Amino acid sequence: MDRYLIVSTDGHAGLPMEGYRDYLDARYHEAFDKALPIQREMTRRAEEKFLISDFNDNWRRGIEDDLTGAWDGAVRNRVIDADGVAAEVLFPDGITEMNAPPFGAGLGLRPWGIDPQLQWAGARAHNRWIAEFCRQDPDRRIGLAIVLMLYDVDEALREVKWAFDQGLRGILIPALMGDHDPYNHPKYDPVWAFCQDHNMVVHTHSGPSPDYNFDLPGAVGVYLTEFAWWASRPLWHMIFGGVFERFPRLHFVITEVSEFWIPHMLEMMDVRASVKHTSGKLGDFRSNLTMKPSEYFRRNCWVGASALFDEGSTSVRHDIGINNVMWGTDYPHPEGSWPNTREKLREFFTGMPESEIEAILGGNAVDCYHLDRNRLDAIAARIGPERREYLAGAA
Amino acid sequence: MDRYLIVSTDGHAGLPMEGYRDYLDARYHEAFDKALPIQREMTRRAEEKFLISDFNDNWRRGIEDDLTGAWDGAVRNRVIDADGVAAEVLFPDGITEMNAPPFGAGLGLRPWGIDPQLQWAGARAHNRWIAEFCRQDPDRRIGLAIVLMLYDVDEALREVKWAFDQGLRGILIPALMGDHDPYNHPKYDPVWAFCQDHNMVVHTHSGPSPDYNFDLPGAVGVYLTEFAWWASRPLWHMIFGGVFERFPRLHFVITEVSEFWIPHMLEMMDVRASVKHTSGKLGDFRSNLTMKPSEYFRRNCWVGASALFDEGSTSVRHDIGINNVMWGTDYPHPEGSWPNTREKLREFFTGMPESEIEAILGGNAVDCYHLDRNRLDAIAARIGPERREYLAGAA
Repeated sequence: MDRYLIVSTDGHAGLPMEGYRDYLDARYHEAFDKALPIQREMTRRAEEKFLISDFNDNWRRGIEDDLTGAWDGAVRNRVIDADGVAAEVLFPDGITEMNAPPFGAGLGLRPWGIDPQLQWAGARAHNRWIAEFCRQDPDRRIGLAIVLMLYDVDEALREVKWAFDQGLRGILIPALMGDHDPYNHPKYDPVWAFCQDHNMVVHTHSGPSPDYNFDLPGAVGVYLTEFAWWASRPLWHMIFGGVFERFPRLHFVITEVSEFWIPHMLEMMDVRASVKHTSGKLGDFRSNLTMKPSEYFRRNCWVGASALFDEGSTSVRHDIGINNVMWGTDYPHPEGSWPNTREKLREFFTGMPESEIEAILGGNAVDCYHLDRNRLDAIAARIGPERREYLAGAA
Repeated sequence: MDRYLIVSTDGHAGLPMEGYRDYLDARYHEAFDKALPIQREMTRRAEEKFLISDFNDNWRRGIEDDLTGAWDGAVRNRVIDADGVAAEVLFPDGITEMNAPPFGAGLGLRPWGIDPQLQWAGARAHNRWIAEFCRQDPDRRIGLAIVLMLYDVDEALREVKWAFDQGLRGILIPALMGDHDPYNHPKYDPVWAFCQDHNMVVHTHSGPSPDYNFDLPGAVGVYLTEFAWWASRPLWHMIFGGVFERFPRLHFVITEVSEFWIPHMLEMMDVRASVKHTSGKLGDFRSNLTMKPSEYFRRNCWVGASALFDEGSTSVRHDIGINNVMWGTDYPHPEGSWPNTREKLREFFTGMPESEIEAILGGNAVDCYHLDRNRLDAIAARIGPERREYLAGAA
């Protein structure tokens, strides 16, 4: 094929806030109607302190129509065609496009401060909608269900089964664990087992954090220094908890987490799991592992790397694992490669071996998500970036 | 001089639990008498799940007497003489030697779950004792006061002033901030100002963490992966909060934090503070900084590196900053270099340029703590490791 297959492993889709009403159980309509103006007001306030409306207004100017691809399938296909993307993994949206699911069930979800049944209702509204959205074009849309693991494992398991039956391909779990049992607790095993046996990929995504006081100087800098940590904590809970030992075919993805810290963290975990002088007094916690932490990572974990190109970190791809890094465009968010993915790829991939480009752009995602390569190649043959563009760019 | 000056920037000193009673305000004696058996019982339980008594019992065998240097000055001097150490920075002790200050005011201090006045009482008991302990040998003992910054700034400032008057040389502040105002809050400026103007060095030290459930598999691995983060969060709160912009001569030290993650974190902070594409939507939080985060780090921050040698990280010293890394022996804890510091140094420093060895072993600490080099050299001339040992070792 003379074109690259791009599977973006970081896409966002969600209805405008009010649209979720139709996907909610009717008994939550009253709560929804009360919450909607509050959610709008909170988003407006966030624009004063955190999400800067000027920046977003500038960003939106001229691409307003393209941004409606967040919920309009026809627009979305046109937009990703133009960007050269064959398929996408679809996370819920956050505050950027004013289309987070209700009751705090979106990207920034926190398992506290809201009635769990309300948050579940919001998550289910999104899950119903995203399942419908993905059925419109199942080859190109890899949908994830929001699964609020921490409240009740049985309920979570029912939702995962429902999601699988609906054609969704994975789940987004809360990255923040609050006071709930953390992910090294064996009680979550039934969910891991189902996900492993049904190729449902488990995800966290950056965004959620404990409260910061954004009135304080530098608070955004602190948030930006810490967000990858908050999104990634489940990773080492699962590794040290032996989850990948018990479920060797479970796939876990951390997304948009500024991947350049990962090699260090793998090294740190390997040291922790092997050097007894500095930790012997804390006992032998290695008995439930038969491999090094980094070996579980390379076998079971992937990174949805939507900001890889922007942080001078091309060199880390080998230290992370060349088969563990997957491209993401972050459409329709402003901080990713869309709508300049072709140019960004040229910038990022110039001089990289062909096999690595293929792996990062699409091959690794095919493996991680068990995708049908032939069907995706047929799409890429029509809209993927032409290889010769890169060869020209490399000159 | 034919010997090296070693200043250990990670030492621990504290009375056996019951000994703190005499240093407490009398009105807290009743509470102390009630708390003591509880503290003993909690330590005993910790030995079942976290701190492994077998390991510690083995470790203690044959060195029981040396370990009493945690509170006995004559023993301490004999022990550090034998280890080649001229002077030490003295943190409180944790649970290892059963000599933490009362009311949770020791190394693992957490600013919640205990009455602040009780915790202050515990901190002051330690501060009185450590001031007395340091006065016995002020050249060799660089004492730190425990200052519970987060509860009340005025009270904290009074304690810092008291500590300075008593000859203490720095303060240990809580690393965990809980629900209190974080360290980027300008309200702490009076403390930073006093510390800057009186050469009082501000510290955090690893140890404290939020609760882990150590009954769960791998929980110790999670703790070991995360402890450096919990101890170091104040660093980027202070950098992004502009603390070192406003107090350019303030010295801040993070201690026993597995330094090999630091270069990455500095890089991440520099990226956060400079790359707008990936964070522009979150506003311009850079306005209170005139330098890169890593530049503040190199000017204002040091690392008390007591486990540097054990984690294959000799190469990171330049990426951290060759003038920002200070040796520590961690006496009397089992995870440091004591009682084999001479051997560990040979292992670690073989082949390193002489100027770097000198800086890491003692020169950087002289700068950080404003120490009297001549007086320390006089001690080192008597007990420091002979340079020729290293030249031999390097062969």
